[in-house]
Amino acid sequence: MSGTPQHFEAMFSPRSVAMIGASKKPAKWGFMIINNIVMGGYKGRLYPVNPGESEIFGMKSYKNLKEIDDSVDLALVAVPSKSVLQTIDECCEKGVKVSIVITAGFSEASEEGGNIEKEIVAKSRGAGMRIVGPNTMGVFSAASSLHALMPPVRPKFGRISFISQSGNIGTQMLGLGQKRGIGFNKFVSSGNEADLKCTDFLRYFGDDPGTDVIVMYIEGLEDGKEFFDAARSITKKKPIIFFKSGRTDAGARAAKSHVGAIAGSTEVYDAMLRQAGVIRASTTDEILDFSAAFAGLPIPKGRRVGIISGGGGWGVVAADACASVGLQVPDLTNEVKEKLNKLLPHYWSKGNPIDLVASIDVKSLSGVFSIVPECSNIDGMLMLCIVGVGHLLSTNFFGLDEKQMKLLRDIAMEVDIKSAKKIIELIEKTRKPMMIAALSSSSESEGVRILEEHGVPVYDTPERAAKALAKLAEYGEYLRGKN
Amino acid sequence: MSGTPQHFEAMFSPRSVAMIGASKKPAKWGFMIINNIVMGGYKGRLYPVNPGESEIFGMKSYKNLKEIDDSVDLALVAVPSKSVLQTIDECCEKGVKVSIVITAGFSEASEEGGNIEKEIVAKSRGAGMRIVGPNTMGVFSAASSLHALMPPVRPKFGRISFISQSGNIGTQMLGLGQKRGIGFNKFVSSGNEADLKCTDFLRYFGDDPGTDVIVMYIEGLEDGKEFFDAARSITKKKPIIFFKSGRTDAGARAAKSHVGAIAGSTEVYDAMLRQAGVIRASTTDEILDFSAAFAGLPIPKGRRVGIISGGGGWGVVAADACASVGLQVPDLTNEVKEKLNKLLPHYWSKGNPIDLVASIDVKSLSGVFSIVPECSNIDGMLMLCIVGVGHLLSTNFFGLDEKQMKLLRDIAMEVDIKSAKKIIELIEKTRKPMMIAALSSSSESEGVRILEEHGVPVYDTPERAAKALAKLAEYGEYLRGKN
Repeated sequence: MSGTPQHFEAMFSPRSVAMIGASKKPAKWGFMIINNIVMGGYKGRLYPVNPGESEIFGMKSYKNLKEIDDSVDLALVAVPSKSVLQTIDECCEKGVKVSIVITAGFSEASEEGGNIEKEIVAKSRGAGMRIVGPNTMGVFSAASSLHALMPPVRPKFGRISFISQSGNIGTQMLGLGQKRGIGFNKFVSSGNEADLKCTDFLRYFGDDPGTDVIVMYIEGLEDGKEFFDAARSITKKKPIIFFKSGRTDAGARAAKSHVGAIAGSTEVYDAMLRQAGVIRASTTDEILDFSAAFAGLPIPKGRRVGIISGGGGWGVVAADACASVGLQVPDLTNEVKEKLNKLLPHYWSKGNPIDLVASIDVKSLSGVFSIVPECSNIDGMLMLCIVGVGHLLSTNFFGLDEKQMKLLRDIAMEVDIKSAKKIIELIEKTRKPMMIAALSSSSESEGVRILEEHGVPVYDTPERAAKALAKLAEYGEYLRGKN
Repeated sequence: MSGTPQHFEAMFSPRSVAMIGASKKPAKWGFMIINNIVMGGYKGRLYPVNPGESEIFGMKSYKNLKEIDDSVDLALVAVPSKSVLQTIDECCEKGVKVSIVITAGFSEASEEGGNIEKEIVAKSRGAGMRIVGPNTMGVFSAASSLHALMPPVRPKFGRISFISQSGNIGTQMLGLGQKRGIGFNKFVSSGNEADLKCTDFLRYFGDDPGTDVIVMYIEGLEDGKEFFDAARSITKKKPIIFFKSGRTDAGARAAKSHVGAIAGSTEVYDAMLRQAGVIRASTTDEILDFSAAFAGLPIPKGRRVGIISGGGGWGVVAADACASVGLQVPDLTNEVKEKLNKLLPHYWSKGNPIDLVASIDVKSLSGVFSIVPECSNIDGMLMLCIVGVGHLLSTNFFGLDEKQMKLLRDIAMEVDIKSAKKIIELIEKTRKPMMIAALSSSSESEGVRILEEHGVPVYDTPERAAKALAKLAEYGEYLRGKN
C-alpha cells in the first residue's frame, strides 16, 4: 500500500505538528527535536504533548492529543518504546494523518519488538494513518521550514530530496552539504520502514515539483521489483543518485544488525540500477559530489572535456582523471586555437589541457574562459586552480606597506570574483557543465562562495570533479537513448 | 652523476643563500621568493643580488655575487632566461655549491632552450656545482626554516619529505597539508631535472635522518632502473608514497607539453613499484591521506580491523569500505565480547562493527576504546563519528539558559577531548594503528585539533580512512616478506 499525496503533504507541509514526548530535559530526544523544530522556524502550529508537563519553554504543553483543540496533521512520537502502541491508538483516534515514530527498540532489536511494530502498522492502517519508522531520525522540509530531526542540523534549502535508511548518515550528509553549499528540499530518515518504504518516498519525490534530484542511501530493499519500476519511470524526468551500503559480506552483516535489512546481491543491484538509469555513488563523498553536480549543472551532450588549468601539473592530473572515468580530452578546433593564440603568450600549451600562464591579466583570462567552452569539440569543462587561488596572496609581505598590500589583495580578489561570475554566466549561456576544482573553501575565497551560492559545485580535486562530470555524461547518454 | 651529501647539505641546510634577481616589485618572482625566505624565518645568512638595486627592503642588495664578502652555499636564480647562463658562470666562479634555477623557458619550451640547459649543466659540473631545475618552484627545509619557494606557503614542520616534478602541485599539497595538520621535513620541486633528478633526491631522503616518509609526484622517470634500485633498498627502511601522473594517454600528452617528460607505460610502472614495495597513490587526495597515515601511525601486523562507530549507518559503510580494499572485519573474541557486555547496553550489536549507543557515558566510552584494540583478533582500528561530534551541540537551544548551555557544551567538549587523548594513548600502548574519521575539522573540534597536533590523521570519511589503513597493511606485509 502506497501513501497518498495527502499523506505526504501532511508529512512535508503539515499545518500542525504534535510533538509527543516533548521534554525540557536536554538528555532527551523529545528535547532535541522540539528545539530543532522551533529553532528551525517551522511555519505551522506546534503542540508539545507530555502528560507530566503543563508548559514547555513557554509553550502550553498538552497532557494528551485529545486536549489539543485543533486537527493534527503530523505527530512526532518520542516516548518510551513500551508506550508507543498506546500513543499510536491516540493518534488514530485524533485523526492524525502521519506519525513519525522516533522511538527505537522494535523489529531491529527483537522478535517481540517486531510483533509490536506489526501491530502499530495494522492499527494505523485501519485508521487511514501512515507511519514513518519506527527507529527514524525524522524528516526535514524546506517548504514549511520543518526541522523535525534528532540532531541539530540546519540544511541549506535547495532542490535535492534525500531518502536515507540510516538516520545518522542522512542527517550528517545534510550537515556536510550545508558546509559545502549544497541545498536540500526534503529529507526523510525511513528507519525500519514498517509502513512507508523508501520506494513510497521515491515515487512521491518523483512527482514532487520541489525536487530536481533524488538521493537514496539504502542498506536493503524489500521490494526490488517495485523500486525498479518506480526508478525507471522517474529517471526519465529527474536523476536518482543511489548509494548502496552493505555491498560486501562484512557490510551486509553489519547492516543486518543495524536495521535488520537483508542486503541484496551486488550483481543484481548493479544490473538493475544500470537498466533503470540510476546513478550509482560508491562512496559517501560521491553522494554529495554527484548530488551537487546534478542539482547545479546542465547535462552535457557528450564526453569531450576542455581543461583549463592555473598550473601545468594540475592539467596532467585532470587529463588522467578524465581518461580514467571514460571522459575524452580532445584537441581544440583550429579556429579556437587561433583565438587563443591572440590571448595567451606564444609559449602556451597549444592544446587541451590549456595551461594558463601565471602573469595573465583579468581581461585575457575572461577571454580564454569564453572561447574554450564554445569550441564545437567540447561538451563540458574542467577548470582548476583559477577560482580560489587569490587568497594565497593574503599572506603578509614584509617589503610592502599597507597600501601596496591592499592593492595586491584587491587584484587577487578581482580575479577570483570575476572568474566566478564569468563561469556562472557561461554555464547559463553555453548550457555546458563547468566543473570547478579549487584548493580553497568558501570561507577563504569570495569566488568559491559566489559559485556555491549560485549552486555551482566546487570540488577539492580534479579527480572528484571529473568523476561527477562522468556521471552527468552517463545520465545524458541514458536520456538520449531513452527519450 | 649523483649529488654528494655536501651538495644536499648546502641545499637543505645552507649557511648562506644568495637570491639572484631579488626584487622590490610585487609582480616579480624575485620579490615573492625573497619574501617567503624572510617571512619564513630562514636561520642562515641571506644576500639579495640585483645589479639595479642598492638595497631591498632594508637589506643591502649586491650588484653581483663577487661583491658578497662571504661564501655562498646556495644560489636561487630568478633572472630572465637570457641572463641565466651568465649567472651560472658567476655562481661557478663564486664557488656556490648548489644553484636552484627558478627561471623557465628551457628544454620544456624549445630546442634552443634545451641546448642552453645542457650548457648550464656542463658548466656547473665542471665547477663542482649542482643544479636544481630549471623551471622549478624551489625548495623547503624545516631544519633551517628555509622557504625558498615561489608561492607563499608555510608548511607545518614534520617528518615527511616530498619530491615533486610539478612545482604547482607540490607546493599546493604543502598548503593543503598545512590545513590538515600534516607536517613536512623537506620539499623539492625538481623542475626540468637538467642535473639533479628525482632519484638523486630519493637516495638522499632515504638516508636522511629527518625523513620518515618519502612522497613523490612523478610525471616521468628517465632512469627507471636507477630509481627501481634506489627505491627497493629504501623501502626496507622507510615507506615511499608514489603518485604517477600522465598514466593515461590524455595525461601523458598533457605531461609532455608540461615538463617535456616521457611518461612510461602504466603496466611497467605498476609491476616495478609493487616489486620495490613502493606505496602507490592514485589520486591527489591519496597522496596526503597516505602520507599522513605513514607519518603518524604504527604499521599493523595484519589486515583485521575493529570498527567502533558513533552511529549504526557508518559502521555498515565502514565495513563495506574495509572489505572493498582487502581488509577484514572479523568477529571479536568471546573474552572481549564479555567485557563489552558489561559496558554497553544489552541491545548492543554483539559484534564487529561495534555501534556505540548515543547515551553512553564518558567512562564507558573510554572503556570500550581500551578493550577493542587489545582484542587478539584485531590488528588495527577504524573509529567513526566519535571525535568531532561534540560541536553539533554548539548550536543554540531556545529552552536553555546560558548556564545550562554551557553545561551541555562542556559535556560534549569533554567527550571530544577525552576520546582524542585516549586514542593517542592507545596507539602508543598497543602499537596498532587507529584510523579516525570525523565530520568536523580542527577549527570546529578540539578533539580533532589534538589528534592532528599529535600527528594522528583525521579523515573526512571511513572510505578514505580504510584506504589508508589498507596501505599500511600492504607495507607491513612487504616488510615481513622482505626482512
